[in-house]
Formats: sequence, structure tokens, C-alpha cells
Amino acid sequence: MQDTPDAPSETGHSLDPDDWSAFRKRAHSMLDAAIDHVESARDRPVWTPVPDDIKAAIAEPLPMDPQGTDKVCEDLLTQVLPYATGNTHPRFSGWVHGSGAPGGIIAEAMASAMNSNLGGRDHGANYIEHQVINWMKTMFDFPSTSSGLVVSGTSIATVIALSAARYAKADYDIRKQGVRTDKRRLVGYASSEAHSCIARAFDMLGLGIDALRTVPVNDAYEMDIPALRRAIEKDLAAGHQPFCVVGSPATVNTGAIDDLNAISEVCQEHDLWFHVDGAFGAIAAMNDNLKPRFTGIERADSIAFDFHKWVHVQYDAGCVLIRREDLHRKAFTLRPEYLTAAPRGLAGGNPWFCEYGPELSRGFRALKVWFHLKEHGMHKILQKVEDNCQQAVYLGALVEANPHLELLTPVSLNICCFRFVAPAMDDAALNRLNEEIVMRLQESGVAAPSTTKLNGQLAIRVNITNHRVTKSDFDLLVKEAVKLGKECTV
Amino acid sequence: MQDTPDAPSETGHSLDPDDWSAFRKRAHSMLDAAIDHVESARDRPVWTPVPDDIKAAIAEPLPMDPQGTDKVCEDLLTQVLPYATGNTHPRFSGWVHGSGAPGGIIAEAMASAMNSNLGGRDHGANYIEHQVINWMKTMFDFPSTSSGLVVSGTSIATVIALSAARYAKADYDIRKQGVRTDKRRLVGYASSEAHSCIARAFDMLGLGIDALRTVPVNDAYEMDIPALRRAIEKDLAAGHQPFCVVGSPATVNTGAIDDLNAISEVCQEHDLWFHVDGAFGAIAAMNDNLKPRFTGIERADSIAFDFHKWVHVQYDAGCVLIRREDLHRKAFTLRPEYLTAAPRGLAGGNPWFCEYGPELSRGFRALKVWFHLKEHGMHKILQKVEDNCQQAVYLGALVEANPHLELLTPVSLNICCFRFVAPAMDDAALNRLNEEIVMRLQESGVAAPSTTKLNGQLAIRVNITNHRVTKSDFDLLVKEAVKLGKECTV
Repeated sequence: MQDTPDAPSETGHSLDPDDWSAFRKRAHSMLDAAIDHVESARDRPVWTPVPDDIKAAIAEPLPMDPQGTDKVCEDLLTQVLPYATGNTHPRFSGWVHGSGAPGGIIAEAMASAMNSNLGGRDHGANYIEHQVINWMKTMFDFPSTSSGLVVSGTSIATVIALSAARYAKADYDIRKQGVRTDKRRLVGYASSEAHSCIARAFDMLGLGIDALRTVPVNDAYEMDIPALRRAIEKDLAAGHQPFCVVGSPATVNTGAIDDLNAISEVCQEHDLWFHVDGAFGAIAAMNDNLKPRFTGIERADSIAFDFHKWVHVQYDAGCVLIRREDLHRKAFTLRPEYLTAAPRGLAGGNPWFCEYGPELSRGFRALKVWFHLKEHGMHKILQKVEDNCQQAVYLGALVEANPHLELLTPVSLNICCFRFVAPAMDDAALNRLNEEIVMRLQESGVAAPSTTKLNGQLAIRVNITNHRVTKSDFDLLVKEAVKLGKECTV
Repeated sequence: MQDTPDAPSETGHSLDPDDWSAFRKRAHSMLDAAIDHVESARDRPVWTPVPDDIKAAIAEPLPMDPQGTDKVCEDLLTQVLPYATGNTHPRFSGWVHGSGAPGGIIAEAMASAMNSNLGGRDHGANYIEHQVINWMKTMFDFPSTSSGLVVSGTSIATVIALSAARYAKADYDIRKQGVRTDKRRLVGYASSEAHSCIARAFDMLGLGIDALRTVPVNDAYEMDIPALRRAIEKDLAAGHQPFCVVGSPATVNTGAIDDLNAISEVCQEHDLWFHVDGAFGAIAAMNDNLKPRFTGIERADSIAFDFHKWVHVQYDAGCVLIRREDLHRKAFTLRPEYLTAAPRGLAGGNPWFCEYGPELSRGFRALKVWFHLKEHGMHKILQKVEDNCQQAVYLGALVEANPHLELLTPVSLNICCFRFVAPAMDDAALNRLNEEIVMRLQESGVAAPSTTKLNGQLAIRVNITNHRVTKSDFDLLVKEAVKLGKECTV
């Protein structure tokens, strides 16, 4: 291969450093700071608010002149690094956040160096994404002919899956004509405990939030299957077109597990698309001891799930699997002249990933997933899932044994919802009290659970998707919550 | 703050390394490999196909047992790193890819260590994203009351912008009711040269690809404004509801620049949403010498653009700006109980970013943008933009001076479309010939342009969004293209 000498670019400088060895030295010191941050996760407060002087320092004008690598690195170390979300800490249990793992630092640094665009073409990064998708097919017992995509998370995965469902079930060309309300209206079903990303997908796809019918739950917060059947019959009678049902292998509020087998049967009877919203729960279905509770997941038409939650890959990373590749591709493909594939060369590699989702430029987030799964192996990752479920049971027992605390729903999987109780306080007062307890827990830096409401009662919601936490952390959480509750009620 | 001792997790091991110092040593050696990769970008072939034995090695079964950090790193170095897309190389000019910059390696490693989720809550990463958005408001002369979001790229940014447009202009509650075809049909307009992401957004949003009216272009491939007016009048006469026009500050095929001022005036007359698809072109509008050609961009209701193209931030990173924050938020907000904000603590920080786009979990891609803009400053980044435009003119002149080459359209911005010509060959034969030339250029590793078709003629399309390229690289490209063209026609 011929080449030109290492010429400077036109105006004397590219964006590369003038002094590579100084850059390299600085990068190594930043890598140490990054690793220190993860290694010392337990030694810090879970969460620290951003001080006002730091907020003021961040609010600088748009930089017109170069500040240089050293200055930016110093600013990063002082203005940004100390104020992370907190989910790398063992006692973070708010919402559903994964902990991440240090290997992700290596994978992301390397993905950044490669700067690959996985929208299409024929290059190495695509083979890694295909491999991650193939592994997921194996994991969920999906056929090798099925398809998938590594995406930013379950929200986008859900949009993709329901877009394919919409395309598959509409009896007109919905891509060209759009959603038609002069035809039978497309309607879908999910339980009242389903995640808001389902309604959001109905909204985005132009189906309308109202077209997602809310199926009530039973006492265990699981979808009421007879009620699902009644809702479908009612819509059919009204001249609508039921097209999909969404099941949850773990609801976000309480970790309840819908009867996926029963939902699948209803879908078969009515020729509906069966989508599984597996955001964090799907992974639990892969643990041998938990598997029996998730039977039916392998019958889904599509599954959406996250790697950045219970798999602990760094944010952001999720995946969608779709049983029928042809429907998936036909729901998204759009290839103008400037994206035409070639028989050979860089423009080869058909079909391109951009034919399976909304994004044309696609970063190499598959690399951190590939790295993580190889580094740790599924057995160990699934063992941590099981540990978390046992820890939730442990916490539930601590709560039940404590006269100041009340369990608000039985522990189902990895989530424990409880509250501090005090005599002579009604629900409204208890709601305010428990919100205050959670804020103080966070402000103290000791622990970071979140809150939710169950039947109007505000719960301290402890979601355990954390590979660093131990049972003694829950002893401390309970002790501190009770202490704060007492302080607030004297 | 009280704490427990550094206890191992329940089954003896978290996903953290047993030996941090060995992990750290390996991470440093991988960092060197990452930096080497960028520093030596010019010394490699632009592109190398993935060999079959590497494909076979990648296709291993789902890893159940841990392979360990060392093994995974070795696999990464041998199976992945050598086969990047090629866009870090000075002579990559295919499609529209940015080159990236080495500082991104530091930023991404640090973002990975923090593992922040920017969907919401009150923590440091959010302030960095807000700051990046504020900088972009300054850059595009948007009011401080406007809103924005850092996203994966223009595709998602377009979906967000047109979703806000759809919400703002529909005379019914489109989020609840969905797109209604029993009402006046919502229709929009873009030129025949507009990027496919616009049609895709119409598809995804349930408006239908047909609802995006294709406005013809003039000889310079710019939107024909009188034709736009006629199309709107026709739709109004037919009882439809025009709601938006999309202008391109640089089309993907030829770099043509729509008359944004004229489009803005049409939008004002008809109360339409003016969206600018600024994927790579919007940044050029910020260069003082190029600015006059883009007048009107500051009048947009929304702008979608990429950081990973002409700004050279690593993949993936883009942005949407929306003039009216209230419409942006109302088009997306959805806050169930488990996402309720608190007055204090980690659950503070209203409004949350998840109220402005489709994703609830959001990675810290804002960090690499913040890092890059501070490290290099806008002046230097915009100087590289101007360099690229001058290089396109230079290449155009080389083409015109060469009897074997034909310029297929005048150079408009940073794109040069040309072809090799040979006596007595018709367009069909020339199309095959020029496709072959491009494939051989890529296979040789010397250069990687892409192709497109202009009026049925296949063009060698050289898109210059590269901060490492120099004029001598184009001398070499032309020399090699002519050499290959001659080889193919003997």
C-alpha cells in the first residue's frame, strides 16, 4: 500500500495532540482515577449532591478556544467524577439500576479508539454485535433464524418490537399509510403494573396511549388472565383489532411475575403478538432455580431487555429479540441510494443493522456486552441474580421482624417494598414521613433506595440489582431507616 | 457516615476483580493499545476485511464460565481491534462519518467508571448534559428558554423533534388518541434530496411515509420553494393538515443547502413547524465564512444534528434542540409513581431528562461531548470544517483537470461526486465500472469513498468530514482511482 508522509492537516493541526506522549501520560493517570473510582465504591457516600460552586463552575460559556487535555481532565476530576448517580455503591437500591463492572472501562476505551459505526457495512464491530445477539437467542431459546438488535435499553427495544408487531398485524401497509382510524383500531394489552415504556411506545408509534388497554392485576400484582380475555372480547365486539399483549416477567413496582404461559395461550387463540417486557426480569428467567417461575418466556414473539440492569453492563445497553426476522426487517428497512450495499468491499455485509431499528449511525455498545459476558460468564452473573433474590427475602424478614416497619407486599423476586409506621398516623402522614426518611437516607450517604406508591401507600422501595451488596448492608439500611423514622416522629 | 467492613458479596465474589492490581496493569496495557490505534491511524490500510478464521473464532458458544479479563483482552486485540470501520483514517471519506479524537478515550473510560444513568434524578452527570445543551442553544442562537436532549444521533433527534411537532399541531390529543385518519390528515414536506431519517420518523410516528410529501429540487439539488408552496396549497385544498416542513442545511448526496430563510417564511405563513435536519450540515453554519449560506437556521422550531460527524465526537452522539420547552416536554412526559420526583435528595432534579425523549435509562454520552468541546474549542473544530470544504473544492479541481474523470455535480460544501469515464461505455457500464473502482479502492486499503446515484449515474462519492486528511491524500485518491479505472477497462 502506498502512502503519503505523515503530513500535518491543512491548517497545521488536526484534532490529534501535538505531543502524543504527554497525552498518553495524562490518559494513564485518568485511567487510574477511573479504576480508583470503582475500586473504592464502598468507601464513599452512596450519593453526594452537587455543590453550588461546582454548578457555577460548570456553567461556563461555550468554549471557543482550546482548553487543552490537562485542563479538561482536571475539571472532570473535580466537577464531574465526585458526583455520580451512586449506583456503583453496594447500598444503592433505587429504581432499577445496575452496578456496572470495571471491565467496562477497558471495553469502552477500546470502542472509543475504534470509533466504529455499526449502522451497516462490512467490518469487525458488526460481527461482535451479531455474536451478542446470537448468544441472546441461545439464552432465550429463540430460533437461530430470529433476529435482534443491541440498543440503548428496553425503551427503544419496546418501540422496535411493537413496531414490528404493528407491521405484522395491520391489514394495510401501515408504514406507508400510517395508523388508520378509519379502519379497525389496533389495540394492545398490558397489566396495570406494566412499565410506562409500553404506553410510551404506543404514544410514539401513533397508536395512542388509549389503545393500550389496562388489564387489572390480582392480589399478587400479576396480570388477571380472565380479565385479559374479557378485555379482548370487548374490543372485538366493538369492532377494534387486538394485535398484541405485553407480559412482564418482573414488574417494576413489586417484582411480580405475569403468567407468561397463560398470556402466550391467549395470544395463540386470537393471533396476537406476544411481547415480553423483560427489562430486568428476563435475565432472572435464565437462572436454573428461578426458571420454573418464568415458563412461557420462550414462546414470545419478541423480548425487550436490558444489559445495564441485572447483567451489570455499563449504561446504556439493552437488546430486542424478534422471532421472525422477516417481519423485523420489513418493519424497518429503508435503503436510499447512498446506503446501497456492494457485493464486495466496505459496503458489503448485507443486511445492515440499520434495517432493524430506528438508528442509522450506531455506536459500538455491543463491545462492552461481549466483553462482560466473556469476562464473567453467565453462571456467575446469574448467581448474582439469585443472591439478590435471596437478599430481598432476607430484607423482607428483617422488616417483618421489626415492629417499626411494615411490609407493603410480599417479596416476589428482588424487590422489597416497606414503610416505617408510627402510631396514630394516617396514610397521608405516613407517606410524608416515609418520603422524608428516604430523602434523609440519601442525604446521609448511607443508602439510596427509592419510593413508589402501592394502593395509595408510599413505600420505601428497595430494588436489589447490585453485585456488590451483602446482607450486612441491609442490616444497616434497616437500622438507619428506623433511626431516621424515630427522629422524624419525636 | 457509618459503614460495614469491605465484605465479600454473598457467594464470595462480586463481579469486581479478585486482584485489582493485576486488573489495573492489564487496563493500562489496553489503554496503550487504544491510543496506539488512534496515533497510528495513517499507517494502516483504511479498511481490512475480517478474515474467515477470525469470524469463526468470534462465533463461540454463549460463555457460561468466566474467561477472565486477560483472555477477553487478548481476544479483543486479535479479533476486534484490527477490523474497525476505518473512519479514523485520513483517507476514509465514505458516507458521512466523523474521525473521532483521542480525548474521547479518556471521556468514555471515565463515563464507564461513573456508570451514571441520566434518565433523571439529581446528580452531576445531568449538569454536564444541561451544559452541553446550553452551549448548543448559544451556538444556534436559540433562546435560553428552549430545550434539548443529547441523543444517539440525528435519527432519534428527528423522531423527537417531529413528535413535538405532531403534538404541537394536532388539534386533538394525539398522545392519547393516536394518529387519527378520521380527522384531517397530518402531512409534512421535505425535498427529494432529504435524508431517509425523515421518512423513517414519519413511519415510526404512525403518520405514514406517504404523509411526507416529496418536494422536487432545483438544478442545484435545493428544495424548489415555489413547488413547496404548491404542494401545501394542494394538501389544504384536499382537506389535509400540513404541519411541518423539513429543511436541509446540507443534503447527504451532494451537500446542497436548502434556502432555510424561504422555508421559514412559508412555515410562518401557514403556521407550520420548521424543522432543520442538520445532521452534519448544521455545524458548518457556525463557521463565520460559511454562515451566510445558512441564514434562517436560527428561525427553526427544532434542529437535529450529530456530534459524531463533523464535530468528531466518538460514536454515538447527536442532539435535538426545540424552541419551545413546554411543547417538547408535553410531547414526552410520562411519570408513573415509581418515577415521582422528591423535593430533596437523589430523586430531586425536576424536570428529568426522561420527560424529553423516548429513553428512561440514559447513558452519559454528554461527557464525551463536553470533554471534546472544551478540549478543542469551537474555533478549531470549525476551522477543520472549513478546511474540509476547501479540500472538496481542491478535489473538484483535480477531477475537472483529469480527462479520465467527470464531476457529476458542482461541489457545494464538503462533498465531491465524480466518476471515471471511458470511451464508448454507456451509463450502465460506467455504473458497474465505478462501483468496481470503489470496491477495489477499499480492498486495496488506500482509500474508502462510498457511492451514490445522481440522475441514474453511479458516483464515487467523497464526503470530507475528516480532521486528519490533507490535500495530498486527494492527490493519491485521484491517482489510484484513475489507475484502477484504467486497469478495469484494458
